[in-house]
Amino acid sequence: VTTARLETFSDGVFAIAATLLILNVNVTGAPLGKALVHGWPSYVAYAVSFLTIGIMWVNHHGVFSQIDKVDRTFLMINVVFLMLVAFVPFPTKLVAEHIHRPGLEAAALTYGFTLTLTALAYNALWFYAARGGRLLRADADPKTVTGISRSILPGPLIYLTATLFAFGWPTLSIVLFAVIAVFYMAESALFGRRVVNATDTVRH
Amino acid sequence: VTTARLETFSDGVFAIAATLLILNVNVTGAPLGKALVHGWPSYVAYAVSFLTIGIMWVNHHGVFSQIDKVDRTFLMINVVFLMLVAFVPFPTKLVAEHIHRPGLEAAALTYGFTLTLTALAYNALWFYAARGGRLLRADADPKTVTGISRSILPGPLIYLTATLFAFGWPTLSIVLFAVIAVFYMAESALFGRRVVNATDTVRH
Amino acid sequence: VTTARLETFSDGVFAIAATLLILNVNVTGAPLGKALVHGWPSYVAYAVSFLTIGIMWVNHHGVFSQIDKVDRTFLMINVVFLMLVAFVPFPTKLVAEHIHRPGLEAAALTYGFTLTLTALAYNALWFYAARGGRLLRADADPKTVTGISRSILPGPLIYLTATLFAFGWPTLSIVLFAVIAVFYMAESALFGRRVVNATDTVRH
Amino acid sequence: VTTARLETFSDGVFAIAATLLILNVNVTGAPLGKALVHGWPSYVAYAVSFLTIGIMWVNHHGVFSQIDKVDRTFLMINVVFLMLVAFVPFPTKLVAEHIHRPGLEAAALTYGFTLTLTALAYNALWFYAARGGRLLRADADPKTVTGISRSILPGPLIYLTATLFAFGWPTLSIVLFAVIAVFYMAESALFGRRVVNATDTVRH
Repeated sequence: VTTARLETFSDGVFAIAATLLILNVNVTGAPLGKALVHGWPSYVAYAVSFLTIGIMWVNHHGVFSQIDKVDRTFLMINVVFLMLVAFVPFPTKLVAEHIHRPGLEAAALTYGFTLTLTALAYNALWFYAARGGRLLRADADPKTVTGISRSILPGPLIYLTATLFAFGWPTLSIVLFAVIAVFYMAESALFGRRVVNATDTVRH
Repeated sequence: VTTARLETFSDGVFAIAATLLILNVNVTGAPLGKALVHGWPSYVAYAVSFLTIGIMWVNHHGVFSQIDKVDRTFLMINVVFLMLVAFVPFPTKLVAEHIHRPGLEAAALTYGFTLTLTALAYNALWFYAARGGRLLRADADPKTVTGISRSILPGPLIYLTATLFAFGWPTLSIVLFAVIAVFYMAESALFGRRVVNATDTVRH
Repeated sequence: VTTARLETFSDGVFAIAATLLILNVNVTGAPLGKALVHGWPSYVAYAVSFLTIGIMWVNHHGVFSQIDKVDRTFLMINVVFLMLVAFVPFPTKLVAEHIHRPGLEAAALTYGFTLTLTALAYNALWFYAARGGRLLRADADPKTVTGISRSILPGPLIYLTATLFAFGWPTLSIVLFAVIAVFYMAESALFGRRVVNATDTVRH
Repeated sequence: VTTARLETFSDGVFAIAATLLILNVNVTGAPLGKALVHGWPSYVAYAVSFLTIGIMWVNHHGVFSQIDKVDRTFLMINVVFLMLVAFVPFPTKLVAEHIHRPGLEAAALTYGFTLTLTALAYNALWFYAARGGRLLRADADPKTVTGISRSILPGPLIYLTATLFAFGWPTLSIVLFAVIAVFYMAESALFGRRVVNATDTVRH
């Protein structure tokens, strides 16, 4: 139960950040049928950000399956990480509102840098816990720990690369964010079927 | 405790999606008394969507009473399912705003297709877990499992049927969504009184 | 653990309904200092409704300390109860916006009937669980059960009485809602100091 | 499990209050790139308030690690404390909207008094629980208890001092609120690394 309350608070922020995205889904104009068709960017932005936050939650879950204690430094890194997760609805709205309009470059950059910083904070969270086994469970499986490290490490670089395309090709940049989310979901769905039990839930 | 955190996150999304519905309840115009009477569609839409999300939560609860492990595929299906649940406030607002106005057909279709997709995702969630007993508890009762399968399977067809009436009879379609919610509540209240204990909560 | 997930979902709705009240706190006009002073009704309305929802949460907590099983009927009554709790931010906004303005009567009536219905649903929830000991713990203390029944029963009548004053004296009615909340808080703080342990938390 | 549900409800309010802050982050004007640069006060206000609420959550967590029972008075103090925490998004918006504009003094005062009152309520919560060991665990470590008392006691004075600077130097006052949050985070991160186990999580 050491980390129980930390997980409740974190799950709350993940759940709220994801659910608040719906407040950005809006259509204007008439007739409604036509407005709904023209509103597609806001649905796509909703889906991509919801799935991205959902994936972050799954990964956060994976980190916590390997640790069984926390210290105040870890708590503070987690607060900063959650602050970035909870920021995602803002750049999501910017992107949805600027598809096919001037300003898409700035919107995509804001979205991309938010995700890049979030991935960096997630690396800080994991490597602070894993460095020298600081916060790991005594019985943490070294292969699982290495697997998590390997899957987390490239995150900031992947998001930074997709972000940098926004200088000049903002639409490509946004497509890449969607592709990253869908690819990650599909990869997990296809290769993650090994049934796991209570103590190693969501190991890779 | 295997599925505990998944349930916390899911409960958070259900609770927030249901509670955010209140942000769509609004009245305008003066005097206030008259405006409040004219605002009835927004209260009815609030109630129908809140009850519908509440029923989904009860059913989700029922699924989790039968499983005791998860894998990454299941986590991802659950994220997609929650993404659809959290989308419900948007078409709810559309329906409430277009009662007795042009655009009701498009609003009812958006509402109906959202619920149909949600019911489909719920089927995917359950049958992925239940197929071959993949994620079921070792001691899951076959009759209960079959009972859940039977109650889940017709959901998409029922919602699709109510949705298709919206082509031409959008008001009828909306009345059907309300009837489905109220019928389900009443059926549970009348026939679901068998007292259940900790391990088989909300079995049928 | 029987009722754990039901409590998580309910706590989520209580917490969100209470926290969303802040979205109704707004001031307009300039200079800001003067606007903040004129904005007092929205702070008072925020406080009264937050405390009222907080008290409902404390009481809901008290009910769950006496039961250890649920059935589908109880789940459905709880969903209806939460639907009314989550509705509170709407009439709160109406009251805050109509202090010293026409329409206060309609606003106070909406607020009062919402609280009266909530108190009724809370009675239904408790007496459904307690009737014949249906969902009570085997070791529930009869004196505690009787104490809860006695404290819950007058709720609808108290709120209805305060509501009916709104026909003609809406300001008095609103003052009464505040007095009820403050009185209940103070009574608990002064007379509820008996230290309780894990199994009988928040007994009277 | 005594305090479990109280913590769930509290964590919900903390998580929602922090996450709702994003609704105050907004930019207007064109081109978007320039508007995003001019929007810096809303990002800084978001970060400072998110971190401040996160720190309050960490501290609240610390209090609950030392107690294992509650009474109704404690529940009521906690509701009042959460009412103040959930109020933070309102003055945060005021400050963000009035940087470099008339009204900053009133905004900074509102922000500061909210935090001062929150710190006072937090003192009431802790000292009500700790006075004479009323709600403390039988095995609470006296040094830890004294440590928490010492770290909580100066909170209201620190916030009140920063608040009073707003009479005449509102910008300085706001900078002080940010410095308090960052200092507290850094102090914890640098000096809080001692690994703690399940029963004394987040002790100092």
